[in-house]
Amino acid sequence: MAISREVHLLARPDGLPSSDQFHIVETEVGDPGDGEVLVKNSWMSVDPAMRPRLSNGQQSQHQVISGGALGTVIASRHESFKEGDIVQHGAGWRELHLSDGGDLEALDPAGFPETLYMHVLGTTGFTAWGGILITGRLQDGENVFVSAAAGAVGSVAAQIAKLKGCYVIGSAGSAAKCAWLQDTLGLDVAINYREGVLRKSLKAAAPNGIDVYFDNVGGEHLDAALPRMNVFGRIPICGMISAYNNFGAISSGVTTLSNMVYQRITMQGFVVWDFNDRKAEFLDDMRAWLRAGQMHYEETVYDGIESAADALIGLFTGQNTGKMLVKLS
Amino acid sequence: MAISREVHLLARPDGLPSSDQFHIVETEVGDPGDGEVLVKNSWMSVDPAMRPRLSNGQQSQHQVISGGALGTVIASRHESFKEGDIVQHGAGWRELHLSDGGDLEALDPAGFPETLYMHVLGTTGFTAWGGILITGRLQDGENVFVSAAAGAVGSVAAQIAKLKGCYVIGSAGSAAKCAWLQDTLGLDVAINYREGVLRKSLKAAAPNGIDVYFDNVGGEHLDAALPRMNVFGRIPICGMISAYNNFGAISSGVTTLSNMVYQRITMQGFVVWDFNDRKAEFLDDMRAWLRAGQMHYEETVYDGIESAADALIGLFTGQNTGKMLVKLS
Repeated sequence: MAISREVHLLARPDGLPSSDQFHIVETEVGDPGDGEVLVKNSWMSVDPAMRPRLSNGQQSQHQVISGGALGTVIASRHESFKEGDIVQHGAGWRELHLSDGGDLEALDPAGFPETLYMHVLGTTGFTAWGGILITGRLQDGENVFVSAAAGAVGSVAAQIAKLKGCYVIGSAGSAAKCAWLQDTLGLDVAINYREGVLRKSLKAAAPNGIDVYFDNVGGEHLDAALPRMNVFGRIPICGMISAYNNFGAISSGVTTLSNMVYQRITMQGFVVWDFNDRKAEFLDDMRAWLRAGQMHYEETVYDGIESAADALIGLFTGQNTGKMLVKLS
Repeated sequence: MAISREVHLLARPDGLPSSDQFHIVETEVGDPGDGEVLVKNSWMSVDPAMRPRLSNGQQSQHQVISGGALGTVIASRHESFKEGDIVQHGAGWRELHLSDGGDLEALDPAGFPETLYMHVLGTTGFTAWGGILITGRLQDGENVFVSAAAGAVGSVAAQIAKLKGCYVIGSAGSAAKCAWLQDTLGLDVAINYREGVLRKSLKAAAPNGIDVYFDNVGGEHLDAALPRMNVFGRIPICGMISAYNNFGAISSGVTTLSNMVYQRITMQGFVVWDFNDRKAEFLDDMRAWLRAGQMHYEETVYDGIESAADALIGLFTGQNTGKMLVKLS
């Protein structure tokens, strides 16, 4: 019998979440029974996509927050897992996880730090890879715009586009993030969307229009991008972070959709599991880019399970560069 | 030498066009020279897509309005055309058209009234067929919503969906149009969008959601449809008539686009020439449906070239059921 702490949802946020809507609960976790595995989590993933679930009912109240985690098997009575195995799961924000094994994926880090499997080598990297190459049908040398380009998914999408010889514009919400986009990631233009008028900045930044807009934001960003799209342009919709904190997931109105017709644009929402059959190909690409030093990433790490709610809120107030993680002791 | 009248654009409309922005001009048309053909137009097509061109510069001021027409060759010195041939062209709103033949398409009516080649057997029918079957990837038995369903394109799209065994909801702007949609076209539900709250009417009409939304309208219609879309739903965007009379083709804001991600929706703008390689297949389908009495249509006919501007304005004030045409004497 061991003591674990979990993060529960106390009240559903109606706008920007606040820390009093979350709650740390202590629970007793038993020893693994036959066919069970006990995992001690070392990292928890903090993702924008968690936000809508808090309001739309997919996340139950007074239950542990669903989300990605990575940990080590500390006891096992399951034939497929042994002590010391590193595993990933989506069973949420808790220190200990007692599992029947069905929700665990064993991880071979293949020489890379294990946190990379929480972002560039994990779901966020795979989301970016599939979104820009499969949904976005990116061609070498095209003109690309990525919103929230300093975020975990956006930064990978933007770098893949650069690796494919594209002209890449990225938007971010601070001068420091823009400097990172241009100086470290090598983007052609970085737009600080908090300065000036986004629509005008984007027009100036895209003299040859936009072939692929990788949208993480929606709202004003999408409104500004649509009139810049070239014929047969593609808009993979990865997320609409601008809408996540509004009641009913309503974004600021997009008024320029008639460009969809004039330029025969395709806009398509996707989620990472749409690409599951391409996982090995993704890992091959990404490991090669990492080994060649061609894929940069940053991690913003909050310490301890008690900081998890602040980490999630921080996503929506621009506190992260790159992947937001919570480290458990 | 003959006298022809043409409709010219006098001033660019900024909202709903008004008749004083158009102007009838008399011109002298010479006899055909070597390689030339003289066409006497009998029908002119009036289409929503003409509207944005009047404001966005694609239509030149003080020039004849571009648009579809159908006529008869009355004199020819071109080897491919002879007197009496029926031809279609896009050379616009004029009584006589002197052509080098390059813009003429000879028409074999195959036993159907020639005006049908201005709508169900012409561009509007082909637009509907390609938009719902190719862009919309319609599957038999799906749940379908068509906006402006009493219009020339919408009514064909809705009937094709019925022919494919689908549950079909249509919207229109009057009780009479809604009665036609239900009683003649056999739609499952017709919504009068001028009554009640469209978002609520559509929710009530779509108990099993929407798999394909054929959008002719944009704005409030699209805003209402997005939350109703099923997973992997498709939204072929044929037009956004709600935006055409607003400056800069700006529609009322669409605030529900985050559903694109949740349901992995594909939204795609298209134009009819995207389907050019499928024209024969379209004609085979449509002629068979017409012969079987399975394809209904209406024509709203304005008489004489002097009524052409009013016919165009009438499109945006709901004066037509089915295809809007101008008959020339």
